[in-house]
Amino acid sequence: MADKKMVEQITSMDVDFAQWYTDICKKADLIDYSSVKGCMIIRPYGYAIWENIQKILDTRFKELGHENVYMPMFIPESLLQKEKDHVAGFAPEVAWITHGGSEPLAERMCVRPTSETLFCEHYANIIHSYRDLPKLYNQWCSVVRWEKTTRPFLRSREFLWQEGHTMHATAEEAVAETVQMLNVYADFHEQDLAIPVIRGKKTPSDKFAGAEDTYAIEALMHDGKALQAGTSHYFGDGFARAFDITYTDKENKVCYPHQTSWGVTTRMIGGIIMTHGDDNGLVLPPAVAPVQVVIIPVQQHKEGVLAKAAEIADALKAAGLRVKVDDSDNSPGWKFAEYEMKGVPVRLEVGPRDIENNSCVLVTRHNREKTFHSLDNIAAAVADKLEEVRRGIYEKALANREKRTYICKTMDEIIAKLEANGDGLVKAMWCGEEACEDEVKEKTGVGSRCIPLTEEKLSDVCVCCGKPAKHMVVWGKAY
Amino acid sequence: MADKKMVEQITSMDVDFAQWYTDICKKADLIDYSSVKGCMIIRPYGYAIWENIQKILDTRFKELGHENVYMPMFIPESLLQKEKDHVAGFAPEVAWITHGGSEPLAERMCVRPTSETLFCEHYANIIHSYRDLPKLYNQWCSVVRWEKTTRPFLRSREFLWQEGHTMHATAEEAVAETVQMLNVYADFHEQDLAIPVIRGKKTPSDKFAGAEDTYAIEALMHDGKALQAGTSHYFGDGFARAFDITYTDKENKVCYPHQTSWGVTTRMIGGIIMTHGDDNGLVLPPAVAPVQVVIIPVQQHKEGVLAKAAEIADALKAAGLRVKVDDSDNSPGWKFAEYEMKGVPVRLEVGPRDIENNSCVLVTRHNREKTFHSLDNIAAAVADKLEEVRRGIYEKALANREKRTYICKTMDEIIAKLEANGDGLVKAMWCGEEACEDEVKEKTGVGSRCIPLTEEKLSDVCVCCGKPAKHMVVWGKAY
Repeated sequence: MADKKMVEQITSMDVDFAQWYTDICKKADLIDYSSVKGCMIIRPYGYAIWENIQKILDTRFKELGHENVYMPMFIPESLLQKEKDHVAGFAPEVAWITHGGSEPLAERMCVRPTSETLFCEHYANIIHSYRDLPKLYNQWCSVVRWEKTTRPFLRSREFLWQEGHTMHATAEEAVAETVQMLNVYADFHEQDLAIPVIRGKKTPSDKFAGAEDTYAIEALMHDGKALQAGTSHYFGDGFARAFDITYTDKENKVCYPHQTSWGVTTRMIGGIIMTHGDDNGLVLPPAVAPVQVVIIPVQQHKEGVLAKAAEIADALKAAGLRVKVDDSDNSPGWKFAEYEMKGVPVRLEVGPRDIENNSCVLVTRHNREKTFHSLDNIAAAVADKLEEVRRGIYEKALANREKRTYICKTMDEIIAKLEANGDGLVKAMWCGEEACEDEVKEKTGVGSRCIPLTEEKLSDVCVCCGKPAKHMVVWGKAY
Repeated sequence: MADKKMVEQITSMDVDFAQWYTDICKKADLIDYSSVKGCMIIRPYGYAIWENIQKILDTRFKELGHENVYMPMFIPESLLQKEKDHVAGFAPEVAWITHGGSEPLAERMCVRPTSETLFCEHYANIIHSYRDLPKLYNQWCSVVRWEKTTRPFLRSREFLWQEGHTMHATAEEAVAETVQMLNVYADFHEQDLAIPVIRGKKTPSDKFAGAEDTYAIEALMHDGKALQAGTSHYFGDGFARAFDITYTDKENKVCYPHQTSWGVTTRMIGGIIMTHGDDNGLVLPPAVAPVQVVIIPVQQHKEGVLAKAAEIADALKAAGLRVKVDDSDNSPGWKFAEYEMKGVPVRLEVGPRDIENNSCVLVTRHNREKTFHSLDNIAAAVADKLEEVRRGIYEKALANREKRTYICKTMDEIIAKLEANGDGLVKAMWCGEEACEDEVKEKTGVGSRCIPLTEEKLSDVCVCCGKPAKHMVVWGKAY
């Protein structure tokens, strides 16, 4: 199988997980590098995954009443400085524009790292009365944060995302929106991306710059490291006060509205790779796979084979599936390896003998299971297989997380379990003091990821200081 | 009708067309301004028009085999400088990033004004053999050009667009792609936006920086000024040579591929406003209208009215139409004016008496024609009305263009016709010399817009110098 090797030029994940990740990004044609340091080119196959993600999420946002807008990509320095925590959080990592053409600017501007300040300035213009609330806006765009160390999808200087920004009459309504959007993200991950997540609140030290509360979903990657996969922030009325956004309520009283923001990014593609991928390449969740089923004609030069492949493709497309027929002159072996590398969930093989039997072979990517199927009602059989892949990869990811979740009551236990079983999530109680958070991280290597919304009480005392515990925290090493 | 006036606060187009345009942009809730000078906020109603434009065009591009990608938004100065005509054209109008966080950059970068250089660098990496061709890539993104004078949609420092970049084995194939995409733009304008356009080639002085040929579609606005509504460029192999992009052909010979690029922008929304709008506000082509039909319940407090409005809305939605019911407590008169301002193509009024008669009233926005219709099969009646609006506004725009097109054989004739009839398109012969182009512009005020692909021969000699003519040129004042 010389041509099989031609495709499979990736490092084994057990040998070097980081190199395996980079290999997949490159060899599955997801990204390329350019002379723009720290940024990536998202190639057609990678961008098609993002387009599928966008379609699903955008539909859900709109069903919940959100509207899309577009704000300028620049933020004047004085505008960025209006909310003090916000500017302190972002100013050190923005890209600064100082010249337009050959003229120096009167005031320098940064490329947006996030757009709270722009939305707030606009809201101050358009919100006057309780009738103007709620405002449920979302924006799809790219943002820039001047990261020192970068990795494709996970941390790059420019990335694509959506940022929801909403304004509400009451704190209760805004908190409900914050939690609602966290749940949208969690459902999307679990149902569509087949990635199990923990819904939680960040500890105060880890909140978004300017937020009262930051909620996040945390996923565990194959190597035992945690990935923050989406965040939803409740701002209270802090930005409204800084930007002088007010509305008149029904009793004619002037009030500050309450605000949220929430976002997910191209980082999710990194999460898909590291949750589902294996040593043969990418494994894509069917909901976002650019090609859900690839048809490989076997002995395609024989009469009737290509025609049958095309006929099957038409039947699958008519059922709404994303299908590709590979009738190139590469060998079937090369093609098998190529589409395994690219993570196509289902492969359909059809050759002369299959056609005689009115049947075909279906192979599911995640477990390479081969089954034979009648060509009658083949679309339903493929749809079943896609659902099988979705469930299969979800369960595999969940099993990995369960195997790598360690309940610990002492610092020594944390160290011992990580040492014995490898990286993973630690569940341990915490007193609420930042000093203990820091000490846990310093001594054991795992930092606080979140306080799960469904808390378990593991003991009465903080794993670090032994004082009364306030919360159960999930700890982990983060990407 | 006091509340009607509340809505209709726009300048008449005959009094001040520029102010009328700005009024519509603001009062129809398309845009807002911010502290970012020269940039605009695209509000939900304006952005929904852009989303509809994107959906239609993106589908067409993909049907023709194009794939979407995403390139970095930054271009290092040295990369911008690789093609000498290109850098000369763009360097004076780019925004420069000089600092990342608090560190000065080793090399400054500009925000992309267009992405030829990035695509070329990538193509040099991924094109090696004739098997890698053609490459048919497209990108949806925002770009920045540091304009001195700005107007919403028409000319802003940041705008949204798509840029197609393709690579082909032969010059013939690349030219065919250039013309194909010009035709896609022209069809989209004529069929979907209901804007008649002239398909033409730019004169050499007006070509895109680095192109061998620039094709464009030109539309005539209501006030007699021309708008370049889309461009498609043939590059030959100039960029390929500058960026060292080569491929090996079937005979194993190393060759340079041939390139195209093509783009349309949010400027098209400006074209829609200035082609179809009137003194009552915006008039939207049904294909891109965020709301195609608005249902206004009359005497909505009476029993059964709101229920019937909702029932009609459901029937229209089931037929795939974009529908809104306005059951707010504003008066019907206020609502009529509001949705006229917003350019909703069809208004459906239904009140107690209509319900008794199993009927409703349909009003088409562009001519305010009122007709009565049975509620049986109302979706088909509304669809007919939408098609009536599309045809009606197209014909109105075409009539305006015909009325304002002046065939001229002498300079005096140009001056006299523009003087007598107002701004418009001049058709006149040209010798091919840039000096004559300049002289026509200087003496008559109209510049060359394009050489139409279907040329008419009006005379044998140049309108300016009297020497033998090479082409018929369409001249006009441009936005």
